[in-house]
Amino acid sequence: MLRIALGQMEVIPGRPDINFHTMLSMIVSARDQQANIIIFPEMAIPGYFLGDTWEQPAFLRDCEMYGQRIVEESVDICIIFGNIGIDWNKKNDDGRFRKYNACFIAHNRKLLGDDNFPYPFRIKTLQPNYREFDDNRHFYSLPKLADELNKQVDDLLQPIRLTIANRRFRLGCLICEDSWSDDYAIDPAAILLKNGPIDLFINISSSPFTLGKNNKRNRVFAHNTKQYGVPLVYVNNVGLQNNGKTIYTFDGFSTVYNRMGNIIEYCPPFDPLLTCITLDFSADDSTQAIKAVPDDHGIDTIYHVLHYGIRHFLNSIQMKKVVIGVSGGIDSAVTAALYVTILGPENVLLVNMPSIYNSQTTKDLASQLAKNLGCLYAIIPIQEAVTFTIAQINQAPISNQKTGDAFHLSVSPFIAENIQARDRSSRVLAGIAAAFGGGFTCNANKSELTVGYSTLYGDQAGFLAAIADLWKHQVYEIATYINQSIYQKEVIPHETITLVPSAELSFDQSVDEGKGDPLIYPYHDFLFRAFVEHWHRATPEDILSWYMEEVLEEKLGCQTGLVNRIFKTPQEFVDDLERWWKLYTGMAVAKRIQAPPVLAVSRRAYGFDHREAQNTLYYTTRYHTLKKQLFKGAEANV
Amino acid sequence: MLRIALGQMEVIPGRPDINFHTMLSMIVSARDQQANIIIFPEMAIPGYFLGDTWEQPAFLRDCEMYGQRIVEESVDICIIFGNIGIDWNKKNDDGRFRKYNACFIAHNRKLLGDDNFPYPFRIKTLQPNYREFDDNRHFYSLPKLADELNKQVDDLLQPIRLTIANRRFRLGCLICEDSWSDDYAIDPAAILLKNGPIDLFINISSSPFTLGKNNKRNRVFAHNTKQYGVPLVYVNNVGLQNNGKTIYTFDGFSTVYNRMGNIIEYCPPFDPLLTCITLDFSADDSTQAIKAVPDDHGIDTIYHVLHYGIRHFLNSIQMKKVVIGVSGGIDSAVTAALYVTILGPENVLLVNMPSIYNSQTTKDLASQLAKNLGCLYAIIPIQEAVTFTIAQINQAPISNQKTGDAFHLSVSPFIAENIQARDRSSRVLAGIAAAFGGGFTCNANKSELTVGYSTLYGDQAGFLAAIADLWKHQVYEIATYINQSIYQKEVIPHETITLVPSAELSFDQSVDEGKGDPLIYPYHDFLFRAFVEHWHRATPEDILSWYMEEVLEEKLGCQTGLVNRIFKTPQEFVDDLERWWKLYTGMAVAKRIQAPPVLAVSRRAYGFDHREAQNTLYYTTRYHTLKKQLFKGAEANV
Repeated sequence: MLRIALGQMEVIPGRPDINFHTMLSMIVSARDQQANIIIFPEMAIPGYFLGDTWEQPAFLRDCEMYGQRIVEESVDICIIFGNIGIDWNKKNDDGRFRKYNACFIAHNRKLLGDDNFPYPFRIKTLQPNYREFDDNRHFYSLPKLADELNKQVDDLLQPIRLTIANRRFRLGCLICEDSWSDDYAIDPAAILLKNGPIDLFINISSSPFTLGKNNKRNRVFAHNTKQYGVPLVYVNNVGLQNNGKTIYTFDGFSTVYNRMGNIIEYCPPFDPLLTCITLDFSADDSTQAIKAVPDDHGIDTIYHVLHYGIRHFLNSIQMKKVVIGVSGGIDSAVTAALYVTILGPENVLLVNMPSIYNSQTTKDLASQLAKNLGCLYAIIPIQEAVTFTIAQINQAPISNQKTGDAFHLSVSPFIAENIQARDRSSRVLAGIAAAFGGGFTCNANKSELTVGYSTLYGDQAGFLAAIADLWKHQVYEIATYINQSIYQKEVIPHETITLVPSAELSFDQSVDEGKGDPLIYPYHDFLFRAFVEHWHRATPEDILSWYMEEVLEEKLGCQTGLVNRIFKTPQEFVDDLERWWKLYTGMAVAKRIQAPPVLAVSRRAYGFDHREAQNTLYYTTRYHTLKKQLFKGAEANV
Repeated sequence: MLRIALGQMEVIPGRPDINFHTMLSMIVSARDQQANIIIFPEMAIPGYFLGDTWEQPAFLRDCEMYGQRIVEESVDICIIFGNIGIDWNKKNDDGRFRKYNACFIAHNRKLLGDDNFPYPFRIKTLQPNYREFDDNRHFYSLPKLADELNKQVDDLLQPIRLTIANRRFRLGCLICEDSWSDDYAIDPAAILLKNGPIDLFINISSSPFTLGKNNKRNRVFAHNTKQYGVPLVYVNNVGLQNNGKTIYTFDGFSTVYNRMGNIIEYCPPFDPLLTCITLDFSADDSTQAIKAVPDDHGIDTIYHVLHYGIRHFLNSIQMKKVVIGVSGGIDSAVTAALYVTILGPENVLLVNMPSIYNSQTTKDLASQLAKNLGCLYAIIPIQEAVTFTIAQINQAPISNQKTGDAFHLSVSPFIAENIQARDRSSRVLAGIAAAFGGGFTCNANKSELTVGYSTLYGDQAGFLAAIADLWKHQVYEIATYINQSIYQKEVIPHETITLVPSAELSFDQSVDEGKGDPLIYPYHDFLFRAFVEHWHRATPEDILSWYMEEVLEEKLGCQTGLVNRIFKTPQEFVDDLERWWKLYTGMAVAKRIQAPPVLAVSRRAYGFDHREAQNTLYYTTRYHTLKKQLFKGAEANV
């Protein structure tokens, strides 16, 4: 019998002082519940996403000191926790102090180790360096340590021996990625087993939420657990961590798998809750009740992640009020409805900023939204200021200081569109947000951000881009979900959902005439997803070859028959493809460099998980060949 | 005798097509000069800083194809070049295709390898993951390959055998970081020597410019070469590459060290030039003339890097005209003088945008600057628009949609300051730049960027922050240098250099009364440098402990006696320290997330080389203790 407490704590990144106290109170609670072991997440003391804070020795010393104080608490309870492990006498490859992503096992005020290992802690074997992870930047992995010591990984990966209630246990300690070994040459769990026997695997993680990841984890971990015939306790933290450009929620969802690979306990996601479970090693644990875990890839999950992420981000920057520019369109309506659930209607100020191009339809919808939400509302027209700006630019004499000549510039209609967008955000919203005592939101979605269909310092501005990891079709889905399931009434006006999406920056974008964005979301959402989210990222070469093989819709996952309905000719198809590819790899990159932080939902949010350079437009050689073939074929068919 | 051509080419990142043609023409030229070998830089075909473009299989196939075409050219000449090495049958740790940062040695249309190695190319052993480098994200290192193959690194690192002009040579191939092994457990050159003998080391690099790095390279490489007694040919590319947030110049500076560690040839920095040298292995090569290399850490180098970087960046985004907001102050003056040297005065439009707070002094200085540079000039006052904006915000009724109440907001003087800054950039400059057919510059320096002493969407906006990696004192130095050495006359008015630096956003910042920025640059530049640039980064704990030990000025590298002149009491010192630390780790992070790309000069530019999270303010435990001690001491002294 082993009573295990899952310390699914909220880890505050960069705050070892707070995390230490959170751990203390969970330890007290675990003792109260007669736990023999309490397990905390990976990097429970420092937090995980800290940028380069790891390069501050003073910070490292503090984490080490708090870790030592946790060890002091391990009387009558075994405490397992993640922290930075430091060897002040060795160097990392960058010449800075040697740091490990480590798991500490403390019992009776001592750290448990084994003779084969040079440190009184275990270290991470597999370090992720894809997506938003940069483990190798700061942490020295076990395989590197093995090389340095002229040992084998197999020598260093040993079970930890632990005596609890007069019974001896052998623990197999894994840190996060160690259990995701499919693509690695090393399988830490298999090695531990070989060096076993192992009574219990633990995996301490700091694993950000990604849509669908828990389903995958449960498949992978259940499969492995069953294969190894050893139970596994997975402990992950909750909370919010960021690496500047991208903000991640952590859902915890700590889970216990029995040796049959069944889930016998889990902590509710996003809840900083201590959960205890008793594992009976003597009995056939297949008798223990199996728990069904909630699915995690539906629209309800997305809503929850957005809600949790926004709430925690606002807390972390101590922002209590926001201003939201509302156009009557879907993106600002969803954003407004979300913020109201978090801050209350009295702390959300919606501002409608019409120009001569805004229809009565959308103005009414904006006003209706404010009414439905019961929040603060203001109308601040921008036409006067925009007209003034255009006139000021058109009329200002530009003098050549060499020749003495003077001339005038001229504001084109396209330039005037961007002047409107910047007027709204940088002139009105930024000013009014400061006067209101808060920030203003960025309401951009992922489709727009992909091709830069937004104005820098205009609608792309804001302190947080909360829905910028949702494709446009997901924004619609969440609008319906918010009405039906959250407010359970129509707060987002029905017409906002059915209206043609439009920026309304010129009469060419009149919603009353059914005109709107150049993006055909049912197709472009999926095209862009192939550029951005496919694990092997698609380029025009792939898209064109799929188009020519007539498997494009299948490959993109969009509606069948759509492509030929949208594009009458191959030329139209190619023009469209090249238009967006050029923007995605060009101007949109420049805009994303200056974009607000994005709240991550998908497996590839913009920012730190989508590294990019501002390079020139490129088409592969085979793309050019395919294009020639296509047009030759088209000609031949005529 | 071996005649070697150093292919110091300009590599265009993400353009294998262009790079291939550049290589072709250099190969022709090398043959003309009877070279036996031509050596190109690391990643000569794809470029090095590509963000996650490595995840596009179509791009990889293209690079592979161009590499094969280079191999076809290796008739009568040996061609050594860097490219991505791909194993389509293996996986990287992220599940994507296996990729190596590789060196290809082609001779007589064949790739040279050896029986001990599974590929017909060599791969990088030491992969940097610090600073702006992310090698492990995409490339599989030689130690990992060795582990996978159950071999030793020593087995895999073998010389390449090459027969040229009936003489057999053994080459030791190193890729960039392989020669910077001081902090690594593995020394590739030493292993190659052990597996030798080696007649010649080559190092192909793609090594961005950093102030002082060449001096260090020459020390390290000369020392190693002498120690090993084997000559070394180092080939680096020129050009510009970026990873979004940070833009790097590449200076080439390819260098040949003889076996005594002396420099016998080098390519002029920043020049895409083929240079040939004849190495006589039979003779005592100490007789070859030793060349003195230019120093690379002076203000002239900084100027050159800025000039080169701006010019190439403008080219790469095809921008031919810029608008620069000029205040009469030093930052905008330096920026203007720099751009004029690149685009010519007729393509640079300086705009002065006075409000009621701008003095006649600075208005005259702005006008004088334009006159001195002979460029385009406009005055666009902002007061009317600012007054309008403030009135619009103050007068707009905010209605509570729940209660029906209405109220008004009020714009404070501080808010009005930011309204001015945004009015200038987002309203005027962005609009006028579009009408002018160009972009507008960000003139922020590193001191401002460190603590966010600039307004988001205001003076922090722009398409490029060209001087944002210079501390304020460096901006002054470069101003003097530009006048004296570049224009050889006073283009930047003398008074701009001597005037108190001020934002002039309120009457409290009146330059005529000698009032200005809250930053005391001769101290704060060095304090901030300790936060940002020290390899072991300083935090308030370190600063306070140095202050209390009276070694602060020495540790920071600032003027002796300065600290006690500025701060009358320990309380003043601590208040100042906490004020800037709070900003540096708080609001300034939020601003930097949305900052324009920064042109890198120092060894730690903002952006990708200074990863950071928007986390909460933190002081270590020892900092609190020190502070208590300090004030106790201060009280005791009273």
